Amino acid sequence: MTLLETTCAAIPHLDPSAAAAVQRRLDGKTKPRGSLGRLEEIACALAAIQGTASPRAAVKAVVVMAGDHGVAAEGVSAFPQEVTAQMVANFAAGGAAINVLARHAGARVIVVDMGVKIPIPGLPGVRDQRIGAGTRNLARGPAMTREEAARAVEAGIGIAHELADEGVQVLAIGEMGIGNTTPASALTAAFTGLAAAEVTGRGTGIDDAAHARKVDVVNRALAVNRPDPSDPLGTLAALGGFEIAGLAGVVLGAAARRVPVVTDGFIASTAALAAARLAPRAADAVLASHRSVEAGHRAVLRALGKEPLLDLDLRLGEGTGAALAFHLVEAAARVLDEMATFEGAGVTDAGR
Amino acid sequence: MTLLETTCAAIPHLDPSAAAAVQRRLDGKTKPRGSLGRLEEIACALAAIQGTASPRAAVKAVVVMAGDHGVAAEGVSAFPQEVTAQMVANFAAGGAAINVLARHAGARVIVVDMGVKIPIPGLPGVRDQRIGAGTRNLARGPAMTREEAARAVEAGIGIAHELADEGVQVLAIGEMGIGNTTPASALTAAFTGLAAAEVTGRGTGIDDAAHARKVDVVNRALAVNRPDPSDPLGTLAALGGFEIAGLAGVVLGAAARRVPVVTDGFIASTAALAAARLAPRAADAVLASHRSVEAGHRAVLRALGKEPLLDLDLRLGEGTGAALAFHLVEAAARVLDEMATFEGAGVTDAGR
Repeated sequence: MTLLETTCAAIPHLDPSAAAAVQRRLDGKTKPRGSLGRLEEIACALAAIQGTASPRAAVKAVVVMAGDHGVAAEGVSAFPQEVTAQMVANFAAGGAAINVLARHAGARVIVVDMGVKIPIPGLPGVRDQRIGAGTRNLARGPAMTREEAARAVEAGIGIAHELADEGVQVLAIGEMGIGNTTPASALTAAFTGLAAAEVTGRGTGIDDAAHARKVDVVNRALAVNRPDPSDPLGTLAALGGFEIAGLAGVVLGAAARRVPVVTDGFIASTAALAAARLAPRAADAVLASHRSVEAGHRAVLRALGKEPLLDLDLRLGEGTGAALAFHLVEAAARVLDEMATFEGAGVTDAGR
Repeated sequence: MTLLETTCAAIPHLDPSAAAAVQRRLDGKTKPRGSLGRLEEIACALAAIQGTASPRAAVKAVVVMAGDHGVAAEGVSAFPQEVTAQMVANFAAGGAAINVLARHAGARVIVVDMGVKIPIPGLPGVRDQRIGAGTRNLARGPAMTREEAARAVEAGIGIAHELADEGVQVLAIGEMGIGNTTPASALTAAFTGLAAAEVTGRGTGIDDAAHARKVDVVNRALAVNRPDPSDPLGTLAALGGFEIAGLAGVVLGAAARRVPVVTDGFIASTAALAAARLAPRAADAVLASHRSVEAGHRAVLRALGKEPLLDLDLRLGEGTGAALAFHLVEAAARVLDEMATFEGAGVTDAGR
């Protein structure tokens, strides 16, 4: 069996007894039952994923994967393609939004070059997992070969295993890739059956004409590739990107290791959806951070069965929404860990 | 002039030029323009309130005020009245939800006894600003005298000044008081003109019969006190509580010192609304943290003209939602402070 196959097979079921034990613990804390709302829900989800009544979310990391896209040649982005590599350099220097927000959340950032077109040499701390110099143009044929997609996924699985070995307790995924809302829209259309126009948004900020062109590109990609949603790896290869496939692998690897994965915006969530199509139980390990402005994001979250924690009109990617959600995820674990009980604090419990 | 009058008169106008300067700074950062959504809005709001293009939100404090309510005798709460004082002891010991969430956000907690019925003696770190041993029953007459309400408000103003003097850059307000959703509902009805049934919820979790009783209590309070909304101090005295009046004072004092105030749930937001009725510019200093489950909270937020940052089904109070929002407020300031510019990072800017 390949690493991809063994990983998919290794993903455990959720542990409902751990979740129930956590809810009992929360019900003994000095607060009206259920009054911490979604924080209580997160604590239970962490328990079910980690398989313990004492879930942990203090050691955190964001995996940011970057890749370029042949489809950028179709004029689908407001930014030129060289920005992908420039932003990788910005990540390495610590100046991007995700660096700031990860520092704020106390999380490490792992920057991975999955295949930018022309890498900037000599960047400290950028991990080289390059599959190629950008994907091919998905409007004219498959973006990747099946073998390239599998290698990208397995690179992500490997990184998840390493981070789990290093003691990371909760992961986030983020991405950078000029043009990558287009493959995300194409994948979403293929996996959900929705029309291209319903799942294609304005990315970093394109005008009406560019948006119409983008919808057309997604439709051409679907027509030329004829993706078969029952073959998720083939669909991912035809319509995805190196960073999207890599992040799908991070989700699979994390799920196999019982590490919760916080998704980010549209593109990262599409990677999580691809993971869930490769191995349905992978979705159980996913926590949705935020609802982005991108049209397709709602469809992806619906397909994943996830209600996001935040709704802050973000549309940046990089893992920024996930890093903000880390604060809430860690808060849930800390409430469970640190709050006094009615009995311990000598507070009368109305719920008895 | 009284401290209350001088404080209301001292509240400055917002500084739109500082907000505009911050938006220009954000537009130079390495991200598509506007892509950090509400974080950018918060950064601009901080600038407008603080009157600087370099707003700060690192030094944070939560003022948690506690008080008892004569109206608890009407059976409006699921919890017995002694829980207010017990929870003050829990705050002092660091075991309550607000202690955990404030620690997580890196914020101090200032616990203030505004008038619990029977205080637990010898608690370290509890500030004594007691106006009385709980308010009178607002269903039978005014909860406070006008003079008591003014003293409570001025206690809050004094605390805000002290914290501003100590360098606190952003404040949050929270409360504890068994029965205090009832005065909050009565105040909301009086200030907004909405019917009692529209603004009266289930507090910490009461059943249908208790809820009907609570609506009836609010209606009786309005009938017996005949509050005049054009007299906000009189309305606050008749229908409020010591902790609600105190928190209104914190909002006024903070606004006068250009310190942004993050409100919490229904009760704390009602205090902010009372402050805004005492001095309309006070509302400018307020950031709404979350939308609680309580029915009246939406009405209060609407009256304040605020869109909350979080919607997590919280219904605990204590400042818990505000402490969670601190992470976002500080994130906004840090993005402004720490992110690289297009020019500095050598990233091509599509927005030029």
